[in-house]
Amino acid sequence: MQRQNSFHYPSSPSARLRHRRRSNEGIPEDLKSNGSHLLVNDRNKYKSMLIRAYSSIWMIGGFALAIYLGHLFIMAMVVVIQIFMARELFNLLRRTHEDRQLPGFRSLNWYFFFTAMFFVYGRLLSQRLVNTVTTDKVLYLLVSSLVKYQMAICYFLYIAGFMWFILTLKKKMYKYQFGQYAWTHMILIVVFTQSSFTVANIFEGIFWFLLPATLIVINDIAAYFFGFFFGRTPLIKISPKKTWEGFIGASVTTIISAFMLAHIMGRFSWLTCPRKDLSTGWLHCDPGPLFTPEYYALPGWIPTWFPWKAVTILRVQWHAICLGLFASIIAPFGGFFASGFKRAFKIKDFGDSIPGHGGITDRMDCQMVMAVFSYIYHQSFVVSQGITVESIIDQILMNLTFDEQQLLFTKIGQMLQDRLIPQ
Amino acid sequence: MQRQNSFHYPSSPSARLRHRRRSNEGIPEDLKSNGSHLLVNDRNKYKSMLIRAYSSIWMIGGFALAIYLGHLFIMAMVVVIQIFMARELFNLLRRTHEDRQLPGFRSLNWYFFFTAMFFVYGRLLSQRLVNTVTTDKVLYLLVSSLVKYQMAICYFLYIAGFMWFILTLKKKMYKYQFGQYAWTHMILIVVFTQSSFTVANIFEGIFWFLLPATLIVINDIAAYFFGFFFGRTPLIKISPKKTWEGFIGASVTTIISAFMLAHIMGRFSWLTCPRKDLSTGWLHCDPGPLFTPEYYALPGWIPTWFPWKAVTILRVQWHAICLGLFASIIAPFGGFFASGFKRAFKIKDFGDSIPGHGGITDRMDCQMVMAVFSYIYHQSFVVSQGITVESIIDQILMNLTFDEQQLLFTKIGQMLQDRLIPQ
Repeated sequence: MQRQNSFHYPSSPSARLRHRRRSNEGIPEDLKSNGSHLLVNDRNKYKSMLIRAYSSIWMIGGFALAIYLGHLFIMAMVVVIQIFMARELFNLLRRTHEDRQLPGFRSLNWYFFFTAMFFVYGRLLSQRLVNTVTTDKVLYLLVSSLVKYQMAICYFLYIAGFMWFILTLKKKMYKYQFGQYAWTHMILIVVFTQSSFTVANIFEGIFWFLLPATLIVINDIAAYFFGFFFGRTPLIKISPKKTWEGFIGASVTTIISAFMLAHIMGRFSWLTCPRKDLSTGWLHCDPGPLFTPEYYALPGWIPTWFPWKAVTILRVQWHAICLGLFASIIAPFGGFFASGFKRAFKIKDFGDSIPGHGGITDRMDCQMVMAVFSYIYHQSFVVSQGITVESIIDQILMNLTFDEQQLLFTKIGQMLQDRLIPQ
Repeated sequence: MQRQNSFHYPSSPSARLRHRRRSNEGIPEDLKSNGSHLLVNDRNKYKSMLIRAYSSIWMIGGFALAIYLGHLFIMAMVVVIQIFMARELFNLLRRTHEDRQLPGFRSLNWYFFFTAMFFVYGRLLSQRLVNTVTTDKVLYLLVSSLVKYQMAICYFLYIAGFMWFILTLKKKMYKYQFGQYAWTHMILIVVFTQSSFTVANIFEGIFWFLLPATLIVINDIAAYFFGFFFGRTPLIKISPKKTWEGFIGASVTTIISAFMLAHIMGRFSWLTCPRKDLSTGWLHCDPGPLFTPEYYALPGWIPTWFPWKAVTILRVQWHAICLGLFASIIAPFGGFFASGFKRAFKIKDFGDSIPGHGGITDRMDCQMVMAVFSYIYHQSFVVSQGITVESIIDQILMNLTFDEQQLLFTKIGQMLQDRLIPQ
C-alpha cells in the first residue's frame, strides 16, 4: 500500500541542482526548494516521511488483520478500497457550478457503480454462493435462479440508467453531461478491473493475492530508500523524483524478497488453498507439486565451509521470481501513468483519504497493474486451465436438477461399466 | 441499417412553427428552414430521401448477399463495419495541430484496436477453431496452445501499448494525450461490445442476428414514414425531428413485423441452426420445440366466414414479440444518445461513409443496443444456458482420464446420497 514519491529525488545539494535544471518544468514541491531553504526542505522531507511511515503502519496492521480473518474479510477490504477509489475519482472532474443545476446527476454515478458491483461480484461469486447454500432447498432454488438471470437483470439495470441519463439531459449542459458519462464509465472500468481480478486471486488462494500485493509494497519502500540515499540519475521525465538508482535497487530487493517470501507463505495452507465457497472456516487441501518442498544438494565447497548440505525449494518460488520481475519492472509504469495523469489535469493527489500518502487511488496505481498480471499469470502458467473433476461437479450443482443429476449418474455408471467389460 | 432523422419533424407549416418555437436552440437544418424557404426545404427533403433510399438499396443488397453466403461472411461484414466505425470515431476528436507534433501517436490507436480484435475474436472463435482443425494433430496442438495462452499474449500486447503510451508522453501535450487515450478506450469498448455480441448471435443461428437487425431497420423506416406523413407532436428535446406519431406507428409496425418475420425466418434451417465450427457448408439440425409449428384451432366464427380452420405458430414467434417490443421502445434510446452526443460536440454526423446517411456509426447506434439485448435475451430466456446432461457427458469423455471418471462417479453418488438421506 506504500508508493508514490518513491525513487526519491537526488539527496545531495549539487545533484539536486543538476537534477532541477534538467526537469525545469517542475512540480510545486520542486520549485519550493530553492537554494536558501535546502535545510528546511530536508527537515520537511524527514517529517513527511514520518507521517507516511505512521499511516503505513496502520494500513499494514489492518491488512494483516484481514489476512488473518480470511477470504471474505479480505474481499470486504477490497470493496471498501474500491468505494473510496470511486469516490475520489468521481469527485475529481466534478464541477460544482454545473452540478447545482443538475439535481440527482451525481446519484447516477453511484447507480452505475452498484449495478457494476452486482454484475461483477455476482459473476465472481455466484459459483461459490451456490456451493454455500446447497443445504437449504428453497434458498438454493432462489439463488440459482438469481444466478441464471443475473446477466439479464444487470442489463436491464444498466439500460434503465442509460435511459435515465438521456431523459435528464439538459440544454447547454450536454457537453458536461456526456463528459461525465464517459468519465464515469472509465472509472468503473478501472476500479472494477482492479477489484474483480483481485477478488479472483483471493479465492484461488490468498497466496496469489498476498505475494503480489506485498511485492509492490516492498518495491515501493525499497525504491524510496534507495532513491533517498543513493538517487542521482533521473529515471523518467514524467515523474522527476524517480531515479535509476532507486529503480535498480528496488528491483534487486523485490526479486530476492519474492523468492524468499514465497518459501515462507507457501508453507501455510491458509494461504495456499483455494476457497470454493463463501465460508470462513479452516482450510485443508493437498498442497500439490507447487507447494511441496524439493531438495537440492549444494555443491561440494559449501558444506565444507557452512553447516548446510542441501536446500529445500518450493516450485512456486520460481513463479515468484516472475512475479517479482513484473512487480519491479512493469508495474511501476502504473505509477508513471498516474503521475502523468495528475500532471495533465494539474492535481497533486487523487484525494486525501490517507495522511501523508494522498488518496487511496495514489496508493493503488501499481497494485492494479499487478493484480491483473497475477491473475493472468496464474491462469495461464500455474494452473492447467482444463476441465477437472471439481469443475464438472460445480457445473452439475449449478445447472442440473436433482432428476437430471440422477440421470447423469446412471449414464456415467453405464459408460464406466461398458469400458470395464471387454467387448 | 436505416435510421436517423426518423420520426421526421412536423410536416405541416403551422405544426413546424409550433415545433420550432418549442425547441428554439435548434440545429443547423432547423434554422435554415425559415418561413420563406418552406417549399425549397420540402423539395430538399424529397431529394435527400431519394439519395438515402438509393444507398439503402445497396446496403440491403450487400447484406442479403452476406446472409446467403453464411456465417463467416456475415462475420467479415461485421468486422468491416467495425473498422469503419473505429476510423470515424478515432478521427472525431482528433486535432491535426497536436498530432503533427506527436509522430506515431495515431498508430497507437490502431495497435490497441488490433490487440482488442485478437482478444475478442480469439475468445469468441477459439472453441470453433479447435473444433475445425481436429483432423490435423500438429495444427491442433498449435491452435490449442495458442488458445491456452491467448489471454496472456493479449495482456502483454496491451501492456506493451501502455508502456509505449507512457514513454511517448510529451511535455505540454499531456492533457491531449491522456484525453485521446481515454477516448480510444471508450471507442474500443463501444465498437467491440457491439461486434462481439453480434458475432456471438450469428453463431447461435443467423436468425438471432438477422431478426433483431431487420427489426431495427423496419422500425427506422416506419418511424421515418409515419413521422413524415403524420408527425405533429415532438417526442424528445434532444432529437427535435422525432415525433410521437412516428414512434407509435413504428412500434406497432415493428411488433407485427417481428411476429410475421419470425414465422418466415424460423422455417429455414440455414437461419435457425447454430454453427459449431468455422466451416461454410450446409447446415442441418433438429429444429427443436422453438422452431416446430404448433397448431391452434381458430374460434368457431372464423371458419364459417373464411376458409381457415387453424393457424400454425412457431414458439419462437412469442420471443420475436419481445424482440420487437425492445427494438421499438428501448433501442431508439441508442439513437437519442447518439443525437445528444453529436449535439454536445457540435458535429452533424459521425462521418461521411454512406451518401445520404452520414457515417456508418450514425446507422449503428440502435443496432448496438439491440445486438447486446438479443444476446442476453437469447442466453437468459431462450436456451437453457447450454449445460445439459449431454454436454456434461461430452466434457467428461473429452477431458477426463478413466480414473478421474471413476472418481467423479463416486463423488456424484455420494452427493446424491447426502441429499436423499435427511440429516
